[in-house]
Amino acid sequence: MTAYKTFSEKDVIKYVQKLGYFKKSNNLDCAEMGDGNLNLVFRVSDTNNVSLIVKQALPYARCVGESWPLTLDRARIEAEVLLEHAKISTEHTVNVLHYDPELATIVMEDLKAFEIMRAELVAGKGFPHVGKQLGSHLAKTLFYTSDFYLSAKDKKAQVARFINPDLCQITEDLFFTDPYRENERNNIFPTSEKLSLELRTDDNLLAEVAELKAKFLNNTQALLHGDIHSGSLFVDNTTMKVIDAEFGFYGPMGFDVGSPIGNYLLNYCGSAAKWDGVQKEGHLNMLKDITRDTWNVFAKEITQLMEGHTQDLALQNPTYQARFLRSVFLDTIGYAGCELIRRTIGLAHVSDLESIDDTNARAVAEANAIALGKTLINKRHSFVSIEDVLLEAEAIIGG
Amino acid sequence: MTAYKTFSEKDVIKYVQKLGYFKKSNNLDCAEMGDGNLNLVFRVSDTNNVSLIVKQALPYARCVGESWPLTLDRARIEAEVLLEHAKISTEHTVNVLHYDPELATIVMEDLKAFEIMRAELVAGKGFPHVGKQLGSHLAKTLFYTSDFYLSAKDKKAQVARFINPDLCQITEDLFFTDPYRENERNNIFPTSEKLSLELRTDDNLLAEVAELKAKFLNNTQALLHGDIHSGSLFVDNTTMKVIDAEFGFYGPMGFDVGSPIGNYLLNYCGSAAKWDGVQKEGHLNMLKDITRDTWNVFAKEITQLMEGHTQDLALQNPTYQARFLRSVFLDTIGYAGCELIRRTIGLAHVSDLESIDDTNARAVAEANAIALGKTLINKRHSFVSIEDVLLEAEAIIGG
Repeated sequence: MTAYKTFSEKDVIKYVQKLGYFKKSNNLDCAEMGDGNLNLVFRVSDTNNVSLIVKQALPYARCVGESWPLTLDRARIEAEVLLEHAKISTEHTVNVLHYDPELATIVMEDLKAFEIMRAELVAGKGFPHVGKQLGSHLAKTLFYTSDFYLSAKDKKAQVARFINPDLCQITEDLFFTDPYRENERNNIFPTSEKLSLELRTDDNLLAEVAELKAKFLNNTQALLHGDIHSGSLFVDNTTMKVIDAEFGFYGPMGFDVGSPIGNYLLNYCGSAAKWDGVQKEGHLNMLKDITRDTWNVFAKEITQLMEGHTQDLALQNPTYQARFLRSVFLDTIGYAGCELIRRTIGLAHVSDLESIDDTNARAVAEANAIALGKTLINKRHSFVSIEDVLLEAEAIIGG
Repeated sequence: MTAYKTFSEKDVIKYVQKLGYFKKSNNLDCAEMGDGNLNLVFRVSDTNNVSLIVKQALPYARCVGESWPLTLDRARIEAEVLLEHAKISTEHTVNVLHYDPELATIVMEDLKAFEIMRAELVAGKGFPHVGKQLGSHLAKTLFYTSDFYLSAKDKKAQVARFINPDLCQITEDLFFTDPYRENERNNIFPTSEKLSLELRTDDNLLAEVAELKAKFLNNTQALLHGDIHSGSLFVDNTTMKVIDAEFGFYGPMGFDVGSPIGNYLLNYCGSAAKWDGVQKEGHLNMLKDITRDTWNVFAKEITQLMEGHTQDLALQNPTYQARFLRSVFLDTIGYAGCELIRRTIGLAHVSDLESIDDTNARAVAEANAIALGKTLINKRHSFVSIEDVLLEAEAIIGG
């Protein structure tokens, strides 16, 4: 048993040496490179450029400081969610090599040949393969951790194992509660002030968001990643890998499918406001393709899995399965809408909007993100397919 | 720490003496009186007729034998659910005096002045006060254990504490799965054979039952009793008390509201088939009143609680609360329908139907229970109020 202490770069070198990852340990280099909000992230590499990542949870939220304590148990959750998902979708989950509960530390592969998708999208790059791959990853990770596949007893044990109150509360507050009322944590660009006030009196919107929050609070459908956005997707030109699963818990499938779609659409809002001509058209088309592919491949593959691999006798009914998929679709669009709103006026912003230097362009992008978010949440019950989402995006934003 | 052993009547006397419940211990009497399916139940009394109940869980299902092992942890669940519900609804929850985890034993008040409601209903007695009291009890126990009232963190801890895989599996199998397919556990009266076969090919019914099962499996709305039927209600002429909470877990509110309504309606089917004239009319009217009161008082009181005592800011929206109540109504009617069907053709029958000696009358009663169950499940989405349930009962059964 090792007592917890915050790692320095030297500590990390000793730690990986002790674990035996590097045979020739005389020339290890280590740098802290975390740009996230909650943790320390170190890269250790030797002179042959063989490298590893060591991620350590801090007992507080890094972005706020020691006044916001956070459980170290999130390192366990992150490691165990990634290991569960890697069993099901090895190719698209970062490889966890070692987890140490006392030190709240995870050793994992270094995805140095990959880039973070959000930064690349903001720079105008396209990743047309990501939609299909993520759709497939979501179908598998969500199906195989659900009541369709697991015995009720095993699934209940998994629900208990992944109860994650501290991290879920961040989402419960920042995603569903703060953006719809006065709260000092909100971060509202001056031009969006009026629109944010309008949200607070849109009764149907508030009722729909309450319903989406209630589902997040009490619908243990599957083991979610809990925070799949373009900042937790590592991509290269042919594949993608999911990282950062510390928000994992048993929740509604649509949350994991809707979060990345919301983020593609945030980039759509930003890109449409800052670019023109062929560049704009190509990029928006790429975003439409990955949005379409994420949902359509998810829907197709989970339908096949439900048809062929459902273990629960009662849940084998195809009519129920079709109705279930419809409910996941409605949740997906609703959570995507919430993501558009909370990333525009809540605490945690995204570079897709914040990197727009021109104030007028940013104002347009933010207004569009809020309008599209509202529309997705309020009108989703009339949507038939993912094309309806894209039509609304085109109608509000253009492209 | 005391190792588990199955109590004899002598053991029970020594046990309560050691606990100090009886001052003059020289003349204690003890009798095993369990008529349930799962446990030993002892009454200990002294010469002054002061008495207590000692309930001990067996490591297997009593009704089947040692071939069906069951966790002793259900004694913990039962004691802790009753203590949680007693904090909220003291008057209508049996008083737990002591709980011993090693011996899987609960010492509780002896409700000897009360009768089990089912036996009294079968004998033709009426308990018009039960509907209002149970409706109020349900509103309070379900609201105060839900996301409306508890912090998300406290509620998640309660969900984990009350995960109850063994007992939930009994319900998952016997309530939602077995009655709709070939299974040796089913117990089908010959005249109901054909009707039971028809259930297996009613695709909409199977889809609706799948949806109700999925909600039971993954919707942690509130701390349910999990088995509220007329056999777990103790009644006298002015009040009622709920006992037997070993099936407790976090599940959908409508399950706890629908189970007793299903049981009132089972008695309605039985009573209509075996009685005539004024006796029949009076009894069926009493059953309609308690059905109406159970739902209406539940709905009124939980609406007031949601309006006045919801702590979660997002869930304070009245439009959401009205939609939530509608969803609980649909679940309630669906679960009541499932109860009608599974108590007629599943493993665990009820005396409301089985005590009918005349084969033709029993055949009619069972056919009506199955038809009403199907109707409630399939048509509930078009129901506006509890009166629609009573109209269907009248249309199918008469009265």
